[in-house]
Amino acid sequence: MLFGVVTKPDDDWWIGRNTPDIDHLNKLESLMFQGNGYFGIRSSVEEHYMEEKRDMFVLGTFDKYEDEATELPNLPDIVNFEIKVDGHVLKLNHGQVSNFQRSFNIRNGEMTRSFIWKFEGNEYKLKFRRFVSMAHLHLFVSKVEITPLANNVRIQIKSGIDGQQTNEGTQHLIEGTKRLFNARFIQMQTRTQESKVKFALTEYHRLYLNKKELSLNPHLKLNRRQVYANYSVDLDKEQTLSVVKYANIYTSKDRDLKINVSADSLANLKKISRLSYASLMLESSEVWNKKYWNKSYVEISAHNNKPQIAINFARYQLIANTPHDFEMNIGAKGMTGEGYKGHTFWDTEMFMLPYFIFTLPQKAYELLEYRYLSLIGAKRKAHQGGFHGAQYPWEAAMPEDAESAPIWGNADIVTGQPMKILSGFLEQHVTGDVAYGVMRYLKATGDQSFANRMGYEIILQCAKFWASRVEWNNEKNRYEITDVIGPDEYKEHVSNDAFTNYIAHWCMEYGADIIAKLRQENTTIYDQLNQKLSLSELFKALIQKASMMYVPKPNDDQIIPQDDNYLSYKIIDVTKYKNAEKDVEDVSEIFKDFDLKQLDRMQVTKQPDVLLMMLCFEELFSKEVIQKNWDYYEPKTTHDSSLSYSPHAILANDLGLYDKAFEYFEKSCQVDLGMNMDSSVKGTHMASMGGIWNVIVEGFGGVRVVNTATHS
Amino acid sequence: MLFGVVTKPDDDWWIGRNTPDIDHLNKLESLMFQGNGYFGIRSSVEEHYMEEKRDMFVLGTFDKYEDEATELPNLPDIVNFEIKVDGHVLKLNHGQVSNFQRSFNIRNGEMTRSFIWKFEGNEYKLKFRRFVSMAHLHLFVSKVEITPLANNVRIQIKSGIDGQQTNEGTQHLIEGTKRLFNARFIQMQTRTQESKVKFALTEYHRLYLNKKELSLNPHLKLNRRQVYANYSVDLDKEQTLSVVKYANIYTSKDRDLKINVSADSLANLKKISRLSYASLMLESSEVWNKKYWNKSYVEISAHNNKPQIAINFARYQLIANTPHDFEMNIGAKGMTGEGYKGHTFWDTEMFMLPYFIFTLPQKAYELLEYRYLSLIGAKRKAHQGGFHGAQYPWEAAMPEDAESAPIWGNADIVTGQPMKILSGFLEQHVTGDVAYGVMRYLKATGDQSFANRMGYEIILQCAKFWASRVEWNNEKNRYEITDVIGPDEYKEHVSNDAFTNYIAHWCMEYGADIIAKLRQENTTIYDQLNQKLSLSELFKALIQKASMMYVPKPNDDQIIPQDDNYLSYKIIDVTKYKNAEKDVEDVSEIFKDFDLKQLDRMQVTKQPDVLLMMLCFEELFSKEVIQKNWDYYEPKTTHDSSLSYSPHAILANDLGLYDKAFEYFEKSCQVDLGMNMDSSVKGTHMASMGGIWNVIVEGFGGVRVVNTATHS
Repeated sequence: MLFGVVTKPDDDWWIGRNTPDIDHLNKLESLMFQGNGYFGIRSSVEEHYMEEKRDMFVLGTFDKYEDEATELPNLPDIVNFEIKVDGHVLKLNHGQVSNFQRSFNIRNGEMTRSFIWKFEGNEYKLKFRRFVSMAHLHLFVSKVEITPLANNVRIQIKSGIDGQQTNEGTQHLIEGTKRLFNARFIQMQTRTQESKVKFALTEYHRLYLNKKELSLNPHLKLNRRQVYANYSVDLDKEQTLSVVKYANIYTSKDRDLKINVSADSLANLKKISRLSYASLMLESSEVWNKKYWNKSYVEISAHNNKPQIAINFARYQLIANTPHDFEMNIGAKGMTGEGYKGHTFWDTEMFMLPYFIFTLPQKAYELLEYRYLSLIGAKRKAHQGGFHGAQYPWEAAMPEDAESAPIWGNADIVTGQPMKILSGFLEQHVTGDVAYGVMRYLKATGDQSFANRMGYEIILQCAKFWASRVEWNNEKNRYEITDVIGPDEYKEHVSNDAFTNYIAHWCMEYGADIIAKLRQENTTIYDQLNQKLSLSELFKALIQKASMMYVPKPNDDQIIPQDDNYLSYKIIDVTKYKNAEKDVEDVSEIFKDFDLKQLDRMQVTKQPDVLLMMLCFEELFSKEVIQKNWDYYEPKTTHDSSLSYSPHAILANDLGLYDKAFEYFEKSCQVDLGMNMDSSVKGTHMASMGGIWNVIVEGFGGVRVVNTATHS
Repeated sequence: MLFGVVTKPDDDWWIGRNTPDIDHLNKLESLMFQGNGYFGIRSSVEEHYMEEKRDMFVLGTFDKYEDEATELPNLPDIVNFEIKVDGHVLKLNHGQVSNFQRSFNIRNGEMTRSFIWKFEGNEYKLKFRRFVSMAHLHLFVSKVEITPLANNVRIQIKSGIDGQQTNEGTQHLIEGTKRLFNARFIQMQTRTQESKVKFALTEYHRLYLNKKELSLNPHLKLNRRQVYANYSVDLDKEQTLSVVKYANIYTSKDRDLKINVSADSLANLKKISRLSYASLMLESSEVWNKKYWNKSYVEISAHNNKPQIAINFARYQLIANTPHDFEMNIGAKGMTGEGYKGHTFWDTEMFMLPYFIFTLPQKAYELLEYRYLSLIGAKRKAHQGGFHGAQYPWEAAMPEDAESAPIWGNADIVTGQPMKILSGFLEQHVTGDVAYGVMRYLKATGDQSFANRMGYEIILQCAKFWASRVEWNNEKNRYEITDVIGPDEYKEHVSNDAFTNYIAHWCMEYGADIIAKLRQENTTIYDQLNQKLSLSELFKALIQKASMMYVPKPNDDQIIPQDDNYLSYKIIDVTKYKNAEKDVEDVSEIFKDFDLKQLDRMQVTKQPDVLLMMLCFEELFSKEVIQKNWDYYEPKTTHDSSLSYSPHAILANDLGLYDKAFEYFEKSCQVDLGMNMDSSVKGTHMASMGGIWNVIVEGFGGVRVVNTATHS
């Protein structure tokens, strides 16, 4: 298994690099992401480089700038730390660098960077370290140590809060105010321009000369959207200057707010900055150990420790990016980058939820509670489309939003006109996926309280949507679903997509079962839901529509058609595209040869559709049928989505194709950790993180929720 | 005279640099600014560097983002041009660079850059050139030539429209749309978010292999806020690839708009791009020659050609930054950078207007017409302050704006709280300065039509403001003006600032004279103005207040006190601050030793106040009194403003202090052209450009408007 990071054979918690990589910073910024479920920071290095992408997000602080889709605003940077030696700015592309090591400790999220810098006849030993605290949700702490080895030197430090960051040119924050408290604490207050979420960021520095604290007030420097603390210290050769930076962030969305963002931010930092870097790091590590690592540890015996590192890494990423609050959900890239704007997709229920259900059920509960809160937006979306019940958005941001997917995308290469992005309109299976996630949670946990309070209502609202969505085909005497996009996004406007039809059918049946059961067993809940959903009417509709619903069955060759037309299209050899380096931020290899209209007419699949459906409803198919469909669809799949590898790995394992299973597992691990320095640059792939766990536990381990359409 | 650019002894129109200076790009970006009075571009180089500041502005397109002051939005970048050789991006900090030369042709505004680049065993000859057209207001054209000298190579070009630019983190433009026309023309359409000014930018590329045109359609690449055309060409050794980029910009404020910004932009570029780089360059050069250089050329005999280069450069900057339209005015930094947000100050009337009055009177007319249109905003400002007539804003943007100065500045270093910027409230002399500018124009041109249509009204509205502004001092039986900031901005809240009181007094007297004259000589105009201004009442007020107005007279030592308290303050030695490098973007040297409260109590002057007043009203003072005041104030002046040198140079010349006069002239020229690479980084200093001309023509040449309070 080839990784783009260095690993150590005897350390399952360590990834690193031995070169500064200043022309390829973006991938490491994503991989060494630091977060705690409240906020998260890309691991941009302290000094500035051309290729850097600084990002810091607080979950749930969405803002919409004019005609653009809502997104998590990129917040002012607190990582910056400029060092001048005798007036020269430290940069790794000036002078000589040796003994370079950049390390990331997966166990506690600490990043360290150390090197010797030779510049104009002097030598300096430098060590940087930092973390986002798991013990104090608002806190970031960093520590920098500088030791001149050859000569005395004047060190100038410039460190502060830099609000000139944007989301690729879009600015969500007002300039706001910058000020100083108690001659030492610098603060920036701002807010988003449309959603009016308020922020306060405060920073404080403690300086030590050979471990003896210096009492220095900063020289303040204010620029537009920037506030910096400046310090100047004369160092003798071999003396060490240490600077500890304490920074925090508060927002008006915080449930723990006592007075206001500014006062809370200042009071919190005053209190916390009395503690040392080491003791705050220890507190944070203990939370990681006690709450996460000491529980449900996944241990892998393999020929080397890379699979073990991969699963540790995947769990770190999942935990660090999962909201502390039930009004938020996990973004497709978490908080690790600007890709997908912090939006939540079906990725959560289909790819990440199993991990939480089996190991952190309280988190699974909260992630589904978010979908319950989001019924308000989902009902509006259904209504806007002329449907009933709740239709979940393809891209979800705030619970009250109907749909957050962008509407306009790239220009068509032929006509030159901007093309409509259809996902938000046509990728409707998500409404089945959410219900499916609820079902898996209920089956695994037996959490009847959740079922009564939220779960049943989610499922019934989804079922109601499907009952209004299916279309009667008079000629064929059946209900169908036309004009959708299935999981295979190469095909737009398809009819009777296998995955969509199966999950819609399942959802309606499951809804009918729930109504029947409640009517008999729990009249209180039945009455409550009846008021919202007119259950006897809904029940009749669900029974009638589910029974007359078309779900594509294996044909004479045992193949389930992916949609009404797929099997009639031309077959091409996709080997070239399968093996192409996946640069998920850029155009896929296959689009260099064909446009979407051409792909629409070929038996080429981006990611599993029929096969994923078979994994979800495995009890409906014999092993033989699954094998036939594997043999048919697997060779036609390009895996142009990071969601593609893990279901293939699980299915391969079920079919006894163990080499294939391991190959796909390897590819799942390499989506982010692999050699391709152009992948993950806009953030890691959270569904792939979930996928790594799924392959191990659901696939190799065989532990999974066995679905039947009747609930337990 | 030391310059920070290279010059040639035999070329009065050439400035350049022989080193790439990639760590000091900002000063050259300002000095080699390209503009035509409609739009302007900083001379960022084509490839990207860490220190670059790309800026493009169209005059008059102000926008206000939330709590910030209105400003000219930084528009999408059209200069970018990425070259890859066999997959490697050309950057001057990779590989070796030789024969580097960057040149700026002051005569026609063309910038060229040429060098040999050695990279991984191959050598490339590169030449870049570009200009902003004076013949076609919307047009920018660039040409790049690439010749591999040692081996064959694949060249990839990426060139387009990059809307990720901001004003130091503030984004004024919506994402808008990007599209392609006729498979070759790329276009971005956007608008400002508050003022709703629409923009369209279109780009088209023509490629030549050894001068033979290639017929290639671009591969389009769209990112967020970016659209790029990509080309790939295989070159044999010693073949030359030339790429000509045609780009234009249209806005919804354009008076020449025919259909809409998008259609006009496309139609214009289709037409113009049929012409070659050379012929478009020639057209533009001819406009420079015919309209500007062949008229009123200033020729200087000196020991070398640096003074000649300086005056040519100053005139280039003045012309390139002066609006083509009377609804706009000249910014303190023109369009050369983001400093002062494109706002107009007293700089226009006091420092730049003489150049236009004497050599381009139509432009002087338009600049004053802007002030006439701005009466609407100025009346509102007066009204808001409880005054009558028109009070011009300290910082002016759109004519209808009352005041555009920012209100909140840096945090106080002691209390930590944001400090109010008082200029917009207290720096009131601008209302006298505008009237003074009108007077100078009328006296020099005798343009009675302007006087009747606009000039008299401006002066009378200003006089009316002053009559309402002066305060009666019962004890001293006189009118005074308390609580202002004079030209010496070190002193806030002063009473009876010499410059302010003199110009207010002059304005009221001049107003009274105009009323008297009109009543006798032009009853039509009198009646028109009477309806707006109740002239007989105003006349009485002006006579009464002017006659009882306190204007500080020379004391027993012949010194005019700068304000009521100045002469009582402590005197310190300011030599250190006078000689400090002026880094006008950063804090002045003197503020490193004293804060504003301390400076407030010292006889230290930032820029001339009494001396500037004496220059404006020279007929009121004997040479002896002027000499005494020079001897008193000149040593106390730190020149912490770029406006300081030129009046000192003129006055020194009047006093026969010719060495001093030349020294101050030198310093005027060096404000931007000098050795300090940290000056001008946020833009050049337009008042200083006017000052260079003033010193030569008004000072050494002795040609100036002689003021008397009665109009000719």
